Amino acid sequence: MTDIGDDLEVSHDWLSEQDIAQARARVPIVYVQAVPVRLDDLGQLTHVGLLLTIMPDRTMSRAVVGGRVNFGERLRDALARHLQNDLGPLALPRLPPSITPFTVAEYFPNPEISGFHDPRQHAVSLVYVIPIDGDPEPSRAALDFAWMRPEEVVDPAVIDEMNLGQDRLVRRALAHMGCLP
Amino acid sequence: MTDIGDDLEVSHDWLSEQDIAQARARVPIVYVQAVPVRLDDLGQLTHVGLLLTIMPDRTMSRAVVGGRVNFGERLRDALARHLQNDLGPLALPRLPPSITPFTVAEYFPNPEISGFHDPRQHAVSLVYVIPIDGDPEPSRAALDFAWMRPEEVVDPAVIDEMNLGQDRLVRRALAHMGCLP
Amino acid sequence: MTDIGDDLEVSHDWLSEQDIAQARARVPIVYVQAVPVRLDDLGQLTHVGLLLTIMPDRTMSRAVVGGRVNFGERLRDALARHLQNDLGPLALPRLPPSITPFTVAEYFPNPEISGFHDPRQHAVSLVYVIPIDGDPEPSRAALDFAWMRPEEVVDPAVIDEMNLGQDRLVRRALAHMGCLP
Amino acid sequence: MTDIGDDLEVSHDWLSEQDIAQARARVPIVYVQAVPVRLDDLGQLTHVGLLLTIMPDRTMSRAVVGGRVNFGERLRDALARHLQNDLGPLALPRLPPSITPFTVAEYFPNPEISGFHDPRQHAVSLVYVIPIDGDPEPSRAALDFAWMRPEEVVDPAVIDEMNLGQDRLVRRALAHMGCLP
Repeated sequence: MTDIGDDLEVSHDWLSEQDIAQARARVPIVYVQAVPVRLDDLGQLTHVGLLLTIMPDRTMSRAVVGGRVNFGERLRDALARHLQNDLGPLALPRLPPSITPFTVAEYFPNPEISGFHDPRQHAVSLVYVIPIDGDPEPSRAALDFAWMRPEEVVDPAVIDEMNLGQDRLVRRALAHMGCLP
Repeated sequence: MTDIGDDLEVSHDWLSEQDIAQARARVPIVYVQAVPVRLDDLGQLTHVGLLLTIMPDRTMSRAVVGGRVNFGERLRDALARHLQNDLGPLALPRLPPSITPFTVAEYFPNPEISGFHDPRQHAVSLVYVIPIDGDPEPSRAALDFAWMRPEEVVDPAVIDEMNLGQDRLVRRALAHMGCLP
Repeated sequence: MTDIGDDLEVSHDWLSEQDIAQARARVPIVYVQAVPVRLDDLGQLTHVGLLLTIMPDRTMSRAVVGGRVNFGERLRDALARHLQNDLGPLALPRLPPSITPFTVAEYFPNPEISGFHDPRQHAVSLVYVIPIDGDPEPSRAALDFAWMRPEEVVDPAVIDEMNLGQDRLVRRALAHMGCLP
Repeated sequence: MTDIGDDLEVSHDWLSEQDIAQARARVPIVYVQAVPVRLDDLGQLTHVGLLLTIMPDRTMSRAVVGGRVNFGERLRDALARHLQNDLGPLALPRLPPSITPFTVAEYFPNPEISGFHDPRQHAVSLVYVIPIDGDPEPSRAALDFAWMRPEEVVDPAVIDEMNLGQDRLVRRALAHMGCLP
C-alpha cells in the first residue's frame, strides 16, 4: 500500500465509532466492492471468488470483497486496502486502468427500495471486477474463501447462501463479463 | 419528482449546516453530476450546456449540473432533483436506463491529488451525460446557462473560465461521446 | 434518415445476394442490435420490447431489433435504419450520445462457441439499449411486437420462446440496467 | 495462443488477397485494436505504448496495435493474435474480463466522415486498453515501439506524428482512464 494509504489507515482508526454512527445517520456512505475473479490466458473468466462472512444483519453469507472509503482516501487506495484486508497480502489483485465501476449498488436500511440492503446505513457502492493472480487467504473476519465456476455461482443452492443482494451483484458481474449462463 | 424525492427534500432542509459540516469532516460525500447535452435525431452531440455559477472556492466558473445525494435518496432521484433545481422545470432531462456513471470524479480539499478540487469536502461524484429535450433556465444561484459546440468547449478561452476541474470533466464527456476534437 | 443513409440503402439494394454470400463465407459481418425499452420519467426500465419473428435457422422466436451494417454506413445510421424497418416510423427511438455498445454478441455458424448462433454467418454484433418514446408497429417480416415487464422476460416460458441466444442478450441488458431479478 | 488461433492463422493465409479485396469492397470489416499501457501497482497509468509503423496510406505514423478479425475467430483470439504479432511473444498482455470495448472507431475510405481514415476499406474497430506486463518488441512491419507518459502523448509534436485518427484514439483512451491532461 502507498504512504497515503497508511496515513489514512491511521485517520480511520482515529475516527470513533460514535463519529461514524453520526455520519451514517446523516449522509450516504461511499463504498467500493470487488468481485474477485480468476481469468485464463485469454482473459476469460474461469472462477468467481466469494468470501463466507458475517453480514451487517448478523447473518452468514457468501459475499464479495469491499468496504468503506475513508475521508481523503482515493478510490484506488480504498480498493487496494480492502482487497488486502479481505484476501491477504499474497492475493496479488490487478486493479484496472479505469476507476469507473462496472455497476453501482445502492444499499438502503429499507430492504424494499433497491434489492440491496444494509441495516446500518445508506451506502453507495462502486463495484469492480478484479482479477486475482495470487493466493487469497481469508483474513480478518471471514470464515472462508472459495473459487466457484460461473454455473456454480448461479446454482439456487449457492444463491440461497447469499444475503442482502450479494447474489444479484454477482449475477450482474457475470452478465458484464458475458458469462451469465 | 416522486413522493420519495419530496420527502427527502424535507429531510434535507432539516439537516442543519452544522450536521453537514460534521459529516464533511469525517467521510467522503456522495455527489451526482450531469453534463447536459443537446443531441440531433441520430443521437449525435450538437451542444454541451454549461452553467455560469459561483464555485465552492468563491470563484466564478462555467460548470456542469449536480450536487449532494441525500440520506435515503436514490441516485436517480438525486440526479432528477439537481437537474430540476439547476435547469428549471422545463428542461425535460432524459435520465439513462443504466445508473452506472460514464466517469467518476474524486474531489479533494487538497487540489494536488486528483485534479478535481473542492475546498469544503472530499466528494466522490458519479458523472452522467444527460440529454436535454426542453428549455433550461438557470435557476437558483446560477448566473447563466449557455449551449456550446464541442469545438467551443475546448477553446482555451472557455477552458480558462472553468475552475476546480470542470474543464477536465467536460473533456472526458466529449471523449466518451467520441466528440473530443 | 440522412441523405447518406438513403444512398447506402441504394448500395445495399445493389449488392446482390451472391455478393453477400461470398462476403459471409470470408469475413465476419458487422451487426448492430437494439434492445427496445420503455422508461419512466426517472429513466427506470418498465418494459422490454421483443419482436416475434422468423430467425436465420427458420425457427420462430422472440428477438431484439437489428441487422447488418452496410458498406460506408455509420453505426448510428445503421441503428436508426433497422429500428425504423423493424418498429415502423412512429416508434421514436432515442439513440444514445455514445456509440459504444453495452455488450458485444459474437454469432457463429457453430452453436458451441459463444452461445450466440447464426447458421448463415459469423457476425459481430454491437448491442445497445434503446429507449422508445412512440408507438412501435412490427413492420417487415415480424409477426408481433410485445412489451414485457422484466420479471416476464426472465420467465422460463418466455425464455423458451427465444432462440439462438436472444434470451441471453436480453438478460445481459437487464443486468446492465440493474434490473435483472 | 490457442489451437483455434493457429487454425485460423492458416485459414487467414489461405484467404487470397483477391478474396479480401472483394470483401472489402462490399462490407465493413471487423477490427480489434489495443492501446498498450503500463500500470503501477494500484492500476494507475504510467505510460502508453505506441508503435512506429507504415500506415494504410503509406505514411509513417505512431499507432496502436491491432488488425482484422478472421472468419470464425473470436474477438479475444484476434486480440491476442495481433498483440503477439505486433509486440512479440514476451509482451505478456493482460486481456480484460469483459470483451466490451471502451470505444469504437469507425474507419472510412472517405476521411471526412468520422475523423478515422483507412483508404483501403470501411472498418469497424473495437478498441481496448490492454495492460502490458512484459517486454514488447516491435515485430513484423513496425520500425519502433516506445513507452510515453500521458503528457508526452498529447504533446503537439507527438500528435503530429500520428495519422489517420490514431491521436484521437489515444486521447479517448486517456480520457477513459481519467488521465487526459
